Amino acid sequence: MLHMNVKEKLVSIVGVENVEDNNASLLAYSYDSTARYQALPDAMVAPRNKQEVAAVVKLCNEYKIPIVPRGSGTNLCAGTTPTEGGIVLIFKHMNQILEIDQENLTMTVQPGVYTKEILEAAIEVGLFYPPDPGSMHISQIGGNISENSGGLRGLKYGVTRDYVLGLEVVLPNGEIIRTGGKLAKDVAGYDLTRLYIGAEGTLGVITEAILKLIPQPETKKTMLALYEDLEAAAETVSAIIANRIIPATLEFLDQATVQVVEDFAKIGLPTEAKAVLLIEQDGAAEVVARDMEKIEALCKENRAFDVQVARTNEEADQLTAARRSALSALSRLKPTTILEDATVPRSEIAEMVKAIGKIAEKYQLNICTFGHAGDGNLHPTCLTDARNEEEIELVEKAFAEIFQKAVDLGGTITGEHGVGMMKLPYLHLKAGEHGVEAMRSIKKAIDPNMIMNPGKMFEATERKRVVVEQ
Amino acid sequence: MLHMNVKEKLVSIVGVENVEDNNASLLAYSYDSTARYQALPDAMVAPRNKQEVAAVVKLCNEYKIPIVPRGSGTNLCAGTTPTEGGIVLIFKHMNQILEIDQENLTMTVQPGVYTKEILEAAIEVGLFYPPDPGSMHISQIGGNISENSGGLRGLKYGVTRDYVLGLEVVLPNGEIIRTGGKLAKDVAGYDLTRLYIGAEGTLGVITEAILKLIPQPETKKTMLALYEDLEAAAETVSAIIANRIIPATLEFLDQATVQVVEDFAKIGLPTEAKAVLLIEQDGAAEVVARDMEKIEALCKENRAFDVQVARTNEEADQLTAARRSALSALSRLKPTTILEDATVPRSEIAEMVKAIGKIAEKYQLNICTFGHAGDGNLHPTCLTDARNEEEIELVEKAFAEIFQKAVDLGGTITGEHGVGMMKLPYLHLKAGEHGVEAMRSIKKAIDPNMIMNPGKMFEATERKRVVVEQ
Repeated sequence: MLHMNVKEKLVSIVGVENVEDNNASLLAYSYDSTARYQALPDAMVAPRNKQEVAAVVKLCNEYKIPIVPRGSGTNLCAGTTPTEGGIVLIFKHMNQILEIDQENLTMTVQPGVYTKEILEAAIEVGLFYPPDPGSMHISQIGGNISENSGGLRGLKYGVTRDYVLGLEVVLPNGEIIRTGGKLAKDVAGYDLTRLYIGAEGTLGVITEAILKLIPQPETKKTMLALYEDLEAAAETVSAIIANRIIPATLEFLDQATVQVVEDFAKIGLPTEAKAVLLIEQDGAAEVVARDMEKIEALCKENRAFDVQVARTNEEADQLTAARRSALSALSRLKPTTILEDATVPRSEIAEMVKAIGKIAEKYQLNICTFGHAGDGNLHPTCLTDARNEEEIELVEKAFAEIFQKAVDLGGTITGEHGVGMMKLPYLHLKAGEHGVEAMRSIKKAIDPNMIMNPGKMFEATERKRVVVEQ
Repeated sequence: MLHMNVKEKLVSIVGVENVEDNNASLLAYSYDSTARYQALPDAMVAPRNKQEVAAVVKLCNEYKIPIVPRGSGTNLCAGTTPTEGGIVLIFKHMNQILEIDQENLTMTVQPGVYTKEILEAAIEVGLFYPPDPGSMHISQIGGNISENSGGLRGLKYGVTRDYVLGLEVVLPNGEIIRTGGKLAKDVAGYDLTRLYIGAEGTLGVITEAILKLIPQPETKKTMLALYEDLEAAAETVSAIIANRIIPATLEFLDQATVQVVEDFAKIGLPTEAKAVLLIEQDGAAEVVARDMEKIEALCKENRAFDVQVARTNEEADQLTAARRSALSALSRLKPTTILEDATVPRSEIAEMVKAIGKIAEKYQLNICTFGHAGDGNLHPTCLTDARNEEEIELVEKAFAEIFQKAVDLGGTITGEHGVGMMKLPYLHLKAGEHGVEAMRSIKKAIDPNMIMNPGKMFEATERKRVVVEQ
């Protein structure tokens, strides 16, 4: 619980209506979209502007009170669970698109703007904001930036990091800095912009961002390719890239996922296929037509037993919407859904999917796999029940093996979800002990009192090694 | 001078033939491409592999000996001048392309590979490495990464940062870490890859890099647009972007630059024009044709008095080569050439060019301006004589004003050259005092003994403020 004195000071900064510490509020901010992590904060604070953010941070730094900045809490790494209490900072008052600059192709936003609003506002003026995390309908840009969110268009267009040109950040000492700008090129000092992207709120509070927009692609086309076996689908992915075509979207779904999604969306998905590729290309009409023709031929050469091209935009949108619903669909089946994002070089996808299958079998677990095949970013998803402690222990062992396998194949423990509290025991697998030490030294340098989202990414003190049984 | 003991140890690590401390060697590594900075190192050391780099760094860390990693020394910020002595690390033995992975579209390289070799090796397999700094024929990739080099294709394709997926780095304590990988998505911890890109060798030594390649553009077209006045050229730039066209190259040259370049290259450049745009588009043939047609119309609508489209690839290459020769051509005119890279939002180019003209007039200096108009990255270039102390004082005042003006317009003190020693007194203009402090705290955390390229980016101790007279 916050000391009365601190609460009074918070109220004096943001107003009494913007500090909540009743039980209902605390419960509402005690968890995010990550299963099995929950902890009560001491208060929810909703600052109205950057000056108030700065004042709140300064106060918390003085009293060493943890601060957890939070968007919509759609992250899947327990990145915004207030595991060490303190205050949860929300941005309901800082949710404005401040400017669309059509000459410099930028949009300046506050952290509380919904990702979808950004895309819509861009499209309205013929521009495009490509990053499209699965949760984009409700996720906020501040959260996207803090987690460096990916999405379905990552292969061709990159991730959130590639569309942030500048930031305004409140440092843990309460000082406000600005990084980058409406600039295609800027090498004035260390790249603080990109250090804060994906820093999961552990280095300060983002209060404004300058986003990069690009011209809207003229047209797009969407298709499904159906396979009898997994390897054929993976080989198609390799063949497309080997032919120097970079599709906007290149998604993989295994049979289990397709069945569940179809059951949920009822749009006539091919549940008989063992593996499905959802492929989308966008751009100039001639190029899209030519690419899609080539891709269709490559699918067939690589043993697709059927290729279905969406005839209308509505049909195309239905397909991508169905893919986007995979997590929601899967989570209806069992009380607990654990969605991971082990990522490997594109060439290792077949190997990785097979390994996931073997590990699931070894531990007798129900793991579906879908994901962004084009960029090697898979989502092995375990349907389980958090109340079954015995099974959960197996789930943990299985995922530890999956992470290790991904790293052995030249991959990473997390492609787009972040480390948060969930992946913290595995960070050394990817970054190495000395890499983790380097990161921790940066954290200590910027946030010596360890107030910013403590216990995320790495433990405040020394890391406890989790023993992975092979 | 190095202590005998240290020299012996260096020799025992890299072999006697790879440690040089004769006068000729020390002189050769006492300067880079930046005018007016020179300082003798104590030795040149050429390690043969990462283990030797690690051993050398460990030794230097123990004895607190400065290390200056150096590519070809083509930087323009005094980034590799050994201003505090110590050893200059060169990579003549670590100059191999280790792998081209056509499935994952990556190239793995050692730091000593020439940038041009990378592009050529990519093109040979139908792939493309876009970053093309002016010095790419002789610059090394290690230097490009450390300076986050830009180039002529930055507008459409981005800069070096956008093409580095992973690094191997020897930390200042001598430990070796690997960051990133052959991965389109990786959010395992802080983005150390991008922290090291543009860190100017102040945080460790890069010993390997995984570069991202893209499919080679099918075709390209090049044109020149000629103007009677500057504003018309700047308006054309805005009009092209406003029409949602992003050319591969969109370069600006003022009359003085065109005259000098023509005098040097003798290819019939339009010396009668007050301002020239060099425009290139690449991609699918249909799209390039359509874009170039639109661009030509936009040039004419915006008062270009002539538009000349290159009829052959050779003619096109001649034009870009001429542009690339601007620095060499200009540097023939006077003993000292100071090339700067103040950068502004694209919309402010006309304003900035005018301001540069006024400042040159105020101080009675000879300043030509050319640069990457598409990304607001200008190169005001002062032709002067370092032996004329009186004039040099004026040059410094003029550039201080230019930097301030760029920042006032929402720009930066350096778009692609880096801070090094040259821009160090101005970093606070862009990053702010608290931003510089945050950067310095990172430096101290990673390199507590301040051995890595000391005196660059910020002073080892406190910054001395340079008073800018307005």
